[in-house]
Amino acid sequence: MRLAVIPGDGIGPEVVTEALKVLTEVVPGAETTNYDLGATRWHSTGELLPESVLGELRQHDAILLGAVGDPSVPSGILERGLLLRLRFELDHHVNLRPARLYPGVRGPLADPGEIDMVVVREGTEGPYAGNGGLLRKDTEHEIATEVSVNTAFGIRRVVADAFQRAQERPRKHLTLVHKTNVLEHAGSLWSRIVEEESLEHPDVTVAYSHVDAATIHLVTDPSRFDVIVTDNLFGDIITDLAAAVTGGIGLAASGNLDITKRNPSMFEPVHGSAPDIAGQSLADPTAAALSVSLLLDHLGQKEAARRIEASVAFDLATRDQASPGSTQAIGDRLAALVSSNTRQAS
Amino acid sequence: MRLAVIPGDGIGPEVVTEALKVLTEVVPGAETTNYDLGATRWHSTGELLPESVLGELRQHDAILLGAVGDPSVPSGILERGLLLRLRFELDHHVNLRPARLYPGVRGPLADPGEIDMVVVREGTEGPYAGNGGLLRKDTEHEIATEVSVNTAFGIRRVVADAFQRAQERPRKHLTLVHKTNVLEHAGSLWSRIVEEESLEHPDVTVAYSHVDAATIHLVTDPSRFDVIVTDNLFGDIITDLAAAVTGGIGLAASGNLDITKRNPSMFEPVHGSAPDIAGQSLADPTAAALSVSLLLDHLGQKEAARRIEASVAFDLATRDQASPGSTQAIGDRLAALVSSNTRQAS
Ligand SMILES: CC(C)[C@H](C(=O)O)[C@@H](O)C(=O)O
Ligand SMILES: CC(C)[C@H](C(=O)O)[C@@H](O)C(=O)O
Repeated sequence: MRLAVIPGDGIGPEVVTEALKVLTEVVPGAETTNYDLGATRWHSTGELLPESVLGELRQHDAILLGAVGDPSVPSGILERGLLLRLRFELDHHVNLRPARLYPGVRGPLADPGEIDMVVVREGTEGPYAGNGGLLRKDTEHEIATEVSVNTAFGIRRVVADAFQRAQERPRKHLTLVHKTNVLEHAGSLWSRIVEEESLEHPDVTVAYSHVDAATIHLVTDPSRFDVIVTDNLFGDIITDLAAAVTGGIGLAASGNLDITKRNPSMFEPVHGSAPDIAGQSLADPTAAALSVSLLLDHLGQKEAARRIEASVAFDLATRDQASPGSTQAIGDRLAALVSSNTRQAS
Repeated sequence: MRLAVIPGDGIGPEVVTEALKVLTEVVPGAETTNYDLGATRWHSTGELLPESVLGELRQHDAILLGAVGDPSVPSGILERGLLLRLRFELDHHVNLRPARLYPGVRGPLADPGEIDMVVVREGTEGPYAGNGGLLRKDTEHEIATEVSVNTAFGIRRVVADAFQRAQERPRKHLTLVHKTNVLEHAGSLWSRIVEEESLEHPDVTVAYSHVDAATIHLVTDPSRFDVIVTDNLFGDIITDLAAAVTGGIGLAASGNLDITKRNPSMFEPVHGSAPDIAGQSLADPTAAALSVSLLLDHLGQKEAARRIEASVAFDLATRDQASPGSTQAIGDRLAALVSSNTRQAS
């Protein structure tokens, strides 16, 4: 297994170190190569993602990313020039974001019930297409446009993947989240494709929720959701909210998948680089460890993936929530749990 | 005072009846004219908003709307043909949505803290502009676009209004909510206008939050918000979430304002027509009563507006939360409270 690792900025390198500790327990022979991309490289060379680096990244089985971003870099530069560029260049059309409330974890809701959902967020089009512009800049007649571009091809592959995932889960339930009553054209295309694909999956029940109503459901009745499929921007919004109600982005993992496997998929914690706590060993590496679990699952190492998730679940259920320990301490605990699970299983 | 009343569908007529009871207590001479717009009219005549009716609506000081929508009408027809058409034709650029957690009300958060915010949502452009289309419909090459249109003119009037409101509030704090790191062009226009307007309001502190992060803050630290200014779609999403964390859309009121007063402004509860509970006297008319309070405030009747809000606050603090009473019972209580407040004050 050849992994490219982009530790990135802020707490990125800290959580990646722990995640790799965990990985080594289950896949001792994994080869990793580090790529220094992010704020530091941009400051020193002006580079965001050189073609040569992109070419090398393509040679790997998967990419593990810590976090990118620093207050010293103007907003949008690293996001669009590095993170989104990777997602688009590597055709990461399925942005997979599970949200599960693990036993022992207290989120902000008084009465959350059981939460165990997976959001399949489209990752390569919609309002993220970068199609927009300014006219009459800096005048009182300035106009700014942003074009959401939605293709049958782009939507269908994501919807099909979401149905597939729903099919494999006990509840077999899929919710389309959109805003069809206002975004008439994109909404009709998404709705029609969901209807068409549902014919291929007659045992999956299908629901629809407007994105505004979905945010209400996520705080009043999150158990209703099993698999959600949605566009790039709505997915961005509701996965942050879903992470919040399941204990925060410190625990949320994500996979940017090219499900055709033509390009390496990329796995990253949902949290950012958190410069305010960087270098202090305060970051929780749990989301990074869960991202490794998603990575292994994607590469077909289902058993290893499950072991990491089980170890995380055990640690979350038994850790002192108020002071879970330093970044290293949590990483050591997770690595030890995974190692003992691995020995038991073999 | 000449008011146009659109009771609408489902629970709309029920809550409007109670809201008008409350209104009559503070403005005994108010003249009201009912307009039957909504699902019933569409079914029987195919009409959504005839020009003649629009012309008559324009002759009023304000419009009170109950709710429109029915499952028998295809999604989007009434929303775009009636509700959004009214907002656009009457230039309702400031969509005003206060969210306050009243004492006695239990929302879904375990530890909400104090919540008292006002969202100023842009109401006449952005992704709601209706600029989009389909190409190669019903083929595998279909493309759907939605164009978000943002003008300096449209943004500035809303941002200026939000600063004004922030200035008049004790905390004098304004948060711009957008997604500037991805929606580069619209984001830069919104950011620049907020910066420019902040020079006119040096005592208002300004913050920025990406929309995804804002949903996290709304469930983990909602007290941080005072006034929020945001675009039409982000405003749609976060005001539903803000309503949820303050006890649900059963309590949330909104005003669609033309702040130039060239056109009548329109006031409506944030909730929909709730056909599942219609006709059973189960609907809470509180949001409709609070909408009347916003209406009076907008028409300069500040004292009457405050009396209604105070009566609602008193009723919420003292009502049996589990069984607050029938629609009529709540309306009667609110009317009695307003009437006794009115007598005391005069
Ligand atoms: C950093 C930003 C560009 C990114 C996004 O909007 O997709 C982030 O919010 C996420 O969800 O991964
Ligand atoms: C019904 C719908 C068109 C409307 C909107 O999206 O604005 C509603 O959600 C609202 O917030 O008033």
